[in-house]
Amino acid sequence: MGEFMTETQPRPAGARPSTETLERRRSITTETDGRPGPLDGPEAAVILERARASVDPELRAAVESLPGALRRIALYHFGWEHLDGTPAAGNAGKAIRPALVLTAAAALGGPAARAAAVPAAVAVELVHNFTLLHDDVMDRDTTRRHRPTAWTVFGDADAILAGDALQALALRLLAEDPHPASGAAAARLAACVVELCAGQQADTAMEKRAPGEVGLDEVLAMAEAKTGALLGCACAVGALYAGAADEDVAALDAFGREAGLAFQLIDDVIGIWGDPSRTGKPAGADLTARKKSLPVVAALTSGGPAAAELAALYEAPYGEGDEEEVARTALAVERAGGRDWAQAQAADRMARAMQELARAVPDPEEAGGLLALAEFVTRRSN
Amino acid sequence: MGEFMTETQPRPAGARPSTETLERRRSITTETDGRPGPLDGPEAAVILERARASVDPELRAAVESLPGALRRIALYHFGWEHLDGTPAAGNAGKAIRPALVLTAAAALGGPAARAAAVPAAVAVELVHNFTLLHDDVMDRDTTRRHRPTAWTVFGDADAILAGDALQALALRLLAEDPHPASGAAAARLAACVVELCAGQQADTAMEKRAPGEVGLDEVLAMAEAKTGALLGCACAVGALYAGAADEDVAALDAFGREAGLAFQLIDDVIGIWGDPSRTGKPAGADLTARKKSLPVVAALTSGGPAAAELAALYEAPYGEGDEEEVARTALAVERAGGRDWAQAQAADRMARAMQELARAVPDPEEAGGLLALAEFVTRRSN
Repeated sequence: MGEFMTETQPRPAGARPSTETLERRRSITTETDGRPGPLDGPEAAVILERARASVDPELRAAVESLPGALRRIALYHFGWEHLDGTPAAGNAGKAIRPALVLTAAAALGGPAARAAAVPAAVAVELVHNFTLLHDDVMDRDTTRRHRPTAWTVFGDADAILAGDALQALALRLLAEDPHPASGAAAARLAACVVELCAGQQADTAMEKRAPGEVGLDEVLAMAEAKTGALLGCACAVGALYAGAADEDVAALDAFGREAGLAFQLIDDVIGIWGDPSRTGKPAGADLTARKKSLPVVAALTSGGPAAAELAALYEAPYGEGDEEEVARTALAVERAGGRDWAQAQAADRMARAMQELARAVPDPEEAGGLLALAEFVTRRSN
Repeated sequence: MGEFMTETQPRPAGARPSTETLERRRSITTETDGRPGPLDGPEAAVILERARASVDPELRAAVESLPGALRRIALYHFGWEHLDGTPAAGNAGKAIRPALVLTAAAALGGPAARAAAVPAAVAVELVHNFTLLHDDVMDRDTTRRHRPTAWTVFGDADAILAGDALQALALRLLAEDPHPASGAAAARLAACVVELCAGQQADTAMEKRAPGEVGLDEVLAMAEAKTGALLGCACAVGALYAGAADEDVAALDAFGREAGLAFQLIDDVIGIWGDPSRTGKPAGADLTARKKSLPVVAALTSGGPAAAELAALYEAPYGEGDEEEVARTALAVERAGGRDWAQAQAADRMARAMQELARAVPDPEEAGGLLALAEFVTRRSN
């Protein structure tokens, strides 16, 4: 369910980033991004580092509380242990979701709310990782954060059980948190899990159907459930911990959802036209896999000769590494308007996200952190 | 994770049992049981029917709240829908766990506590069914409650996702329950899920190891986690909803755990020496499957010639349907003391359960319902 491919460099868990690291990141961000703005890159990197530093000790303590084998599987998944149980540098992803929780809490309730929201940020990250463990089993994905996925090394049963346990840990953490918002946050996070499951279910079901049978609305709904829901929930939970009014909680949820959809649209564009040297995948990997990504479905449902050509290409099995056919398919998606549509949609979603954010957090300075995170998530181009 | 094989007859969901049904059940219980006592059979059947009637409407409403395909999978799993989506008679198991929640609440807090504990009873039943869905995937079990398991008809991904959603639903229900005990109950139920996962993990890992490498203590610990933990949690959650003191909550947890272990010991005895016409499985099915059940591990670790003979038999692959070898293996388990040990252990566990129950609920009349349920669970012989 929606992982951001950009990964931080491994570093010892809990270590503060050196100035050098931040500098290197800043230059990478600027370089791969191509359009540095006042709000992206550096500020987001600092926010993400701060979130990781706030969240890691509690996150790790929660994972360490698991009994025996479940702990080993989870520590491996989070990148804190090698397969043989020796300590690893830690490579537990970008912490986008915990950062959204903490930054939303800070935007609406200041530093005290940010500090109080750490257990909620940990819970959201545990849920995210539960879905990664299970999605990898279902999708037969073999690599996660540059390492073999848990199911490939421990087997399906262990990966499923570790995921189950992480979901339980997340909701236990909130149930044990005395903060007055913890109950509402738990209810919201549990409802979000149902939505994430529905999104993953729709995705796996859709991939089995013929390309012509899939509508654009349902792919958008699937992407919102699979990717937008947890980003929205992270922001909403942060707002709850700040004691925000219902309409502000709802606005922050919508902000996260729209930004999540914008991310997914851009991610899908990169999956077709991304530079292989930056994505680490062969050109047009999503096309070779016949993925019904958003630009593809937009193109297929657009009518006209390019849509018909694309449909015919998607019906035929690919020859392995047939670059010419990949190029023809990408061109058909583009000619049928799939690329333009996705880019316009992404811009539109980001505009809506900004509107929602401005509604809940009118002061641009206070909204700056959330804006930076949204820009970071959607502007990355690798 | 520990399902009781005795299943109620299908009946329309929510329908009250007819006198005839109760009569038939009473006679079945007496007949198969062989040692009717004042506390088993009929009273337990009435308690289970009442629990089902109290819990089914909320349980069904929770499942119906799931979106689209997840709802269909869950309704099928619970026996409320056929595969084609038409209504089914309902065959959602015995409701032992919800009955324990409600009966514990009543024993410690009277009828008002029982009524208030319905959401908690629903949550426990949702967790139980989440584990069934996932265990069936991992164990490749093809039949559940006389029907094909969910993964065999919907596929692994759908069964995993429906299970994930049921866990979330359970914890959402408690998070949304305004009862003062709901937070403590959620924390306890989530901790129990971790224990259930650890038990299932230990079980699947154990089955891959050589028979001589498995110790009796670890099989007992596994059985307690896999079967005892949720029965204990059900009782503890009921006590929490009755506003019971910590030590009474702990005593009821221990009561449920010990009764659960007694059940597992007896279930394992039946898995070897049960009457095939009653179990519905071939004689010695657990031996043919080389299951490291409690009597087998007790026998293997007992030392002496019968243990050595059993170890040799367990190393060799069975010829299909080789009745003579099944009989020899069963005899080796018996000679090595596995049967006697399991029966003595079961009696011992039941005695401990009774002690714990008497500690928390000294009045025999108030304790009667829980006693009847424990007897029901452990005395069944089919």
